[in-house]
Amino acid sequence: MGFAKIWKPKYGICLVSSMVLNLLLIGYLLFVGTKWNWELSWSMRAAMEAEAVASELCSGHGRAYLDGLVVDGKPVCECNTCFGGPDCSLFSPGCAADVDSGNPLFLEPFWMQNAASSAVLVAGWHRMGYQVNDQAHISTELEKHIRKLHSVVGNAVTEKRFIVFGAGSSQLLNAAVHALSQDKSTSPAGVVAYKAQTEFFRSNDYKFLGDAALWKNASDANVNIIEFVTSPNNPDGHLMKAVVQGDYAKAIYDHANLWPHYTAIPAPADEDLMIFTLSKLTGHAGSRFGWALIKNEAIYQRMATYVYENSVGVSQDTQLVALKLLKVVLEGNGGDFFDFGSTTMRSRWETLSEALSVSNRFSIQEIEPRYCRFFRQVRVTSPAFAWLKCERDEDKDCYSVLKTAGIIGRQGTVFGGGSRYVRLSLIATQDDFDLLMSKINTLVSDECVDSKLVEDHNQPICVDYKLIMNHTL
Amino acid sequence: MGFAKIWKPKYGICLVSSMVLNLLLIGYLLFVGTKWNWELSWSMRAAMEAEAVASELCSGHGRAYLDGLVVDGKPVCECNTCFGGPDCSLFSPGCAADVDSGNPLFLEPFWMQNAASSAVLVAGWHRMGYQVNDQAHISTELEKHIRKLHSVVGNAVTEKRFIVFGAGSSQLLNAAVHALSQDKSTSPAGVVAYKAQTEFFRSNDYKFLGDAALWKNASDANVNIIEFVTSPNNPDGHLMKAVVQGDYAKAIYDHANLWPHYTAIPAPADEDLMIFTLSKLTGHAGSRFGWALIKNEAIYQRMATYVYENSVGVSQDTQLVALKLLKVVLEGNGGDFFDFGSTTMRSRWETLSEALSVSNRFSIQEIEPRYCRFFRQVRVTSPAFAWLKCERDEDKDCYSVLKTAGIIGRQGTVFGGGSRYVRLSLIATQDDFDLLMSKINTLVSDECVDSKLVEDHNQPICVDYKLIMNHTL
Repeated sequence: MGFAKIWKPKYGICLVSSMVLNLLLIGYLLFVGTKWNWELSWSMRAAMEAEAVASELCSGHGRAYLDGLVVDGKPVCECNTCFGGPDCSLFSPGCAADVDSGNPLFLEPFWMQNAASSAVLVAGWHRMGYQVNDQAHISTELEKHIRKLHSVVGNAVTEKRFIVFGAGSSQLLNAAVHALSQDKSTSPAGVVAYKAQTEFFRSNDYKFLGDAALWKNASDANVNIIEFVTSPNNPDGHLMKAVVQGDYAKAIYDHANLWPHYTAIPAPADEDLMIFTLSKLTGHAGSRFGWALIKNEAIYQRMATYVYENSVGVSQDTQLVALKLLKVVLEGNGGDFFDFGSTTMRSRWETLSEALSVSNRFSIQEIEPRYCRFFRQVRVTSPAFAWLKCERDEDKDCYSVLKTAGIIGRQGTVFGGGSRYVRLSLIATQDDFDLLMSKINTLVSDECVDSKLVEDHNQPICVDYKLIMNHTL
Repeated sequence: MGFAKIWKPKYGICLVSSMVLNLLLIGYLLFVGTKWNWELSWSMRAAMEAEAVASELCSGHGRAYLDGLVVDGKPVCECNTCFGGPDCSLFSPGCAADVDSGNPLFLEPFWMQNAASSAVLVAGWHRMGYQVNDQAHISTELEKHIRKLHSVVGNAVTEKRFIVFGAGSSQLLNAAVHALSQDKSTSPAGVVAYKAQTEFFRSNDYKFLGDAALWKNASDANVNIIEFVTSPNNPDGHLMKAVVQGDYAKAIYDHANLWPHYTAIPAPADEDLMIFTLSKLTGHAGSRFGWALIKNEAIYQRMATYVYENSVGVSQDTQLVALKLLKVVLEGNGGDFFDFGSTTMRSRWETLSEALSVSNRFSIQEIEPRYCRFFRQVRVTSPAFAWLKCERDEDKDCYSVLKTAGIIGRQGTVFGGGSRYVRLSLIATQDDFDLLMSKINTLVSDECVDSKLVEDHNQPICVDYKLIMNHTL
């Protein structure tokens, strides 16, 4: 009794509370701990491998990939153009801005920011078979999400349309030409406004007939005319309509860039044959996934057969990845994703327009504001490419002019636009765009040799009445 | 002093040990616990989604997929042929054994057993760009592993060979014909022993000239002859060599089944143009990945260009998955994987041969033992397909005979083998094979109407001297 008074408060409470803590900790480990283990078993290793590679930050000027080279157990950084060194931190000063290809890497940061929702774990036994459900080899869920996406964005009518998947839009363009060219067996079809591939495959079914304009009225021609209509147009970004008319005229609409980050969506496209691709929508050009919306069932069947004969459908791994990406795009009815895309593109256009606004030597296409059904407001469009023109008489070879200044674009002649034009990609990485701008700013400032040059937030302005006027501040 | 004697042993030890236990538990939580959290962040969700779907066991007669339908938040089981119900447990008795297609699902259990090592987590920003390193669009690591695989298996020479990737072997076969047919510009090439695709694409470059035998000596022909050599042969599994000779004769070797689970590997194939595919190697037909080994650089360039023009290379997601699968195949120098494959195939062949050994009505091709470089021993080969022949005079239409008995094979006429032959796939799921065997056993036992039937481990045997003799027990 006596000692009780002494020890109880002093040690008893410690003992009891210590034992309560024991129980709590053990309980936590048993339930939460085992829950962890249960939640992840066979997928753990793949998840850890992916995060280990992703943790290589490469100074923000590159990234390491799961299937990249590994040196001394460390994944090797693959650097953006003009950056080097083990962690991509070294910039090579003399390096040219390569804005030739249409690699849509401007969207990469969005997917890095949304890593958790966009990651996919592919099981080793995922859809090993040749077919899914039917001959069309397409995932029902993916088709459902594609239709939903079009109705949310309002860029294309999917009602009463068949869908064919392809390895990017290129395979589908070939499939479409094949399908349409068999519609009238009498004579091979002529293909207009789309050269490279039709000539490459040298088929009996079709031949290249040159520019669409030459065939404006084909009703008198005794051949099928298949017209490729790229809308928004590559390179200038304008919305296009088929120019060839007549009973035998057919159009294939390439709507690769018909998305809110590049153009305003005035109304849903409602053509007989429309082709879309993941490349310019989500930026996943490497995944090679595209789809076609087709009104006519016979054409649909022929296109599906072409894709089947050519590659036995589209990779199931790709279809799985595409589904996950579209789910992320559709979160919040596309708000976050298209906001990121259009905000990035519009800020790049503002930067470029501002820089060229003080130039008399170079000009770019007009980007008129238009009402966008998706954003429910009038917006300035922001095409994927700038269609730059050299205005000076002596700058006949605009491509070389830019090349000398360290800018690698694509010759305007490739697009039938003449040598005074050059296409500049605005959808590359931020590094590529920043480098492009620094080269352009240098070019523009060089115009100011005989006029005083002032710095306006790091951007040169020629102090010259006329220029100040059309300089949008 | 007095109470010390009383409390110390009784409570002191408890208190101290309890506190020590607390420290241990807290330490564990701090270090191991936080390590868990650190290890997995953004990849957690994808990993859990995959495991949730994989936990749908579907009674072992089907599987749920990550991109499958979801009803009430539960992934829907996709059942094997002839099985149904929410968990694929319902067998439909009247159902026919469909062994027509060459779906290589017999390897699916291997990948389920090796879930941890074969899973791949694809990050949302994985290789978004059009190109990897060079124009060839191919993953350096994947190419390295393909070369390593061939040297480990010893089935093909890769030294001084270029590699082109394609969307399965079908795209590469078309690329090869295109490349070879341009080798002599004078006249279009003739293609022998490979009908469907060459006629489908109706190219100016090549036309189908019929069976190879008709062109055995093409030296007198003034056209290029391109011969498709499928080795091991489809359907009978024999190793083949080109039959067409002459200056302008060229061969494309389709080595889809040149792997230890189907055939003995006598020596590494050393042809100018060899095509392989993941479909029959790992069983991932749905991934659409194949590769070609090419000796001549000009041919290689043309094939690479074809794949580029046709689909701008192969999906990066697919290349990532293929790399992971090959890494698993290469574990222990291919031992585990090829053991599984050949053991499964050989046991199926034994079952089939045993069943047919008592039949006078049906026969299958001889499967002679051969030395295999990979297994370093003489082995009975086990082709992917059984080439079944109806021996009875009245059974001229073998396909219909089997169809009536509930076996759907592929007509021998498709392979130029006559209507007495039918191709039966032995690489389908275990369910498909078991169903095939039960139908065959019924057919065979029906031969025994006028002879006593005994049961030998559930397999009918006609008690008849001659039959007992060649019945291999």
